[in-house]
Amino acid sequence: MDNRNEEKDFRKDFPIFQQEKELIYLDNAATSQRPACVLEAERNFYENTNANPLRGLYELGLEATDAYENARKCVQGFLHAGKAEEIIFTRNTTEALNLVAYSYGLNRLGPGDEILVSIMEHHSNLLPWQMVSRRTGAELKFLECGQDGELTEEQIRKAFTSRTRLTAVTQVSNVFGRENPIKEIVRIAHEHGAVVVADAAQSAPHIPINVQELDVDFLAFSGHKLMAPMGIGVLYGKEELLQDMPPFLTGGEMIERVGRYDAVYAPLPHRFEAGTVNAAGAAALGAAIGYLEGIGWKTLQEREDRLTALALEQMEQIPGIRVLGSRDAGEHCGILTFTVEDVHPHDVASILDADHIAVRAGHHCAQPLMEYLKVPSMVRASISFYNTEEEIRAFTESLSQVRRKMGYGE
Amino acid sequence: MDNRNEEKDFRKDFPIFQQEKELIYLDNAATSQRPACVLEAERNFYENTNANPLRGLYELGLEATDAYENARKCVQGFLHAGKAEEIIFTRNTTEALNLVAYSYGLNRLGPGDEILVSIMEHHSNLLPWQMVSRRTGAELKFLECGQDGELTEEQIRKAFTSRTRLTAVTQVSNVFGRENPIKEIVRIAHEHGAVVVADAAQSAPHIPINVQELDVDFLAFSGHKLMAPMGIGVLYGKEELLQDMPPFLTGGEMIERVGRYDAVYAPLPHRFEAGTVNAAGAAALGAAIGYLEGIGWKTLQEREDRLTALALEQMEQIPGIRVLGSRDAGEHCGILTFTVEDVHPHDVASILDADHIAVRAGHHCAQPLMEYLKVPSMVRASISFYNTEEEIRAFTESLSQVRRKMGYGE
Repeated sequence: MDNRNEEKDFRKDFPIFQQEKELIYLDNAATSQRPACVLEAERNFYENTNANPLRGLYELGLEATDAYENARKCVQGFLHAGKAEEIIFTRNTTEALNLVAYSYGLNRLGPGDEILVSIMEHHSNLLPWQMVSRRTGAELKFLECGQDGELTEEQIRKAFTSRTRLTAVTQVSNVFGRENPIKEIVRIAHEHGAVVVADAAQSAPHIPINVQELDVDFLAFSGHKLMAPMGIGVLYGKEELLQDMPPFLTGGEMIERVGRYDAVYAPLPHRFEAGTVNAAGAAALGAAIGYLEGIGWKTLQEREDRLTALALEQMEQIPGIRVLGSRDAGEHCGILTFTVEDVHPHDVASILDADHIAVRAGHHCAQPLMEYLKVPSMVRASISFYNTEEEIRAFTESLSQVRRKMGYGE
Repeated sequence: MDNRNEEKDFRKDFPIFQQEKELIYLDNAATSQRPACVLEAERNFYENTNANPLRGLYELGLEATDAYENARKCVQGFLHAGKAEEIIFTRNTTEALNLVAYSYGLNRLGPGDEILVSIMEHHSNLLPWQMVSRRTGAELKFLECGQDGELTEEQIRKAFTSRTRLTAVTQVSNVFGRENPIKEIVRIAHEHGAVVVADAAQSAPHIPINVQELDVDFLAFSGHKLMAPMGIGVLYGKEELLQDMPPFLTGGEMIERVGRYDAVYAPLPHRFEAGTVNAAGAAALGAAIGYLEGIGWKTLQEREDRLTALALEQMEQIPGIRVLGSRDAGEHCGILTFTVEDVHPHDVASILDADHIAVRAGHHCAQPLMEYLKVPSMVRASISFYNTEEEIRAFTESLSQVRRKMGYGE
């Protein structure tokens, strides 16, 4: 059963862990580290096929276009989307969600309509809907959750009304780490004639996503949390919805024909990709997906769940620690958000940092949730498959010293 | 005088030119190639300081923040901006110009106002203003130029009216390569109470820019044309203007405090940088600027002008070639846009490609200008300082064969 010693040390794939400095990186939910193969893929683009894609008629330009469009097909496969045209490359999740808010939200919603946003949304899937509500007159309503982050079918059903036209919900909360029942939410939303905008920033690195099975209307994720470089993200949208949406950003590449006063826009997906695309970033995202798929979801999830279970078990033994969410390690996607009694989260993070352990402290870009949970801020340790048991033990050991170091008894 | 043989071979700095395949890259105006030091800077970020900047309280997070904010200071120096807060990192020029259109344009313009756009604008500095005009009722008007791309003070003065509130103009046209008199345009615009939005995508790699001396209100450029990676760009805006503008994209990092229904936004520059920033891209842009400044504008411009003069001189000797714009090589920023009599520009590009020479053919994202010039499309060779005389000779030699290869007499 226990084959830990035979297991691959994934840290070896990551150059940052080969450096001199000590680093126990438990802030994976903020951004992941990058394996050598991803950095190589980006470099390979620049060293071998760099040209402005979609423009050049020469060989190098065609190779750059191929690299870019192959990355799109790779993302299509990763999300199990029906068509490559449904994959729009953006800068990050935030831009993808803003695209939906500006292009779909502002044009489809109006007074009398309701936008339903879950209380656990990251600011990136809340602020754009505040903007849409302000500008269109649609009413912003909230889908509450249990104190442990659970969304029950009853709560969901109660929150929808005949006026709900759009619901914004994260697939995995960056605070609770619990997977929300997107498929059920989509079913209920569609019964009410509403579309679902899912934030997959936290889920994409941890669970397989099948947009067709979920039947979700829009879904966004970022490359940088998925071992790809910063500056590349993805919006999936159903073709029939994207087809009817006006462009968001305008400029080169997204047009068919431009006159002085008007323009005919390009077909999907390029209509939503104005200006020079980040082809190197897309190619590297393709490599990151290839790396993850090479490891396989089973291995990845087993490792993450085992490390999370170990952390949870040890944290529960430390007096004064309260971990948010489920007691089941499998319901955390590696995210353990917690408080230490009497100690400010920033102090917890600083004490851990002195032991070279990187965790996050603050409101986690989820202030309305913090208010709902009645805490000003919390600490978050987030685990990836490339972390090790040794690192988890060092983390919990360091954590067990926090209250003492702050002058409290054991 | 002629010290060509003693000159540095800049191609050695660029890994793509060390590959097996033959490549004479003359599409630098579409995107530049990347020197090893830029690729190293990006890789160094990921291998040594990778964390989500502006968020982590731990050492690595602070290092990532430093890398990002140092890059901002580097861009500030590059543009001679008064304050680092006036530098906003975007994805590319297109996003930067859209930011101004959405955040400034939609909120400050209305019926009765006029937007003045030069006829030579790239689609990225035209389409956003078409959108603003459509949505606000402001009238879109055009600043025409001479057939050689010259904008005279008389033409400029004639185009402004008491109702002009904003003018969008490129510092260097991506078709003519001629530098526009931005300083004079700004002076005239300010006399009329209008702001100037300058597109510096083509100028930034070729001429020093001093935003304070130009007194320009907004100015945008892309990293990828300046030897930096794709996916990073810059908007400069005067502090007093940015200060009064509402956010464009919303999400994490750009807030002070978020409630369920409203938010207080962060101060400049972060208010305009929603979501996880492309810190690695910014750091690499800093390295690219350092590389260029290491070479020095004098060396760079002398080389580009000399190579452009050689190309121009040789092209003028080839029957049937018509080069657009000034006869003075110094007024081209390395851009030579041309037609070959009786031969379609796409065929010209294909014939050159067979000789491993990369040039662009098409409308160059400037369809209204093409219409104005009464040509459907043109060929563009664009030269950078890292090109060589040998490459220019190979280009003109190949070009001299085009008409013959298409079956026309010498």
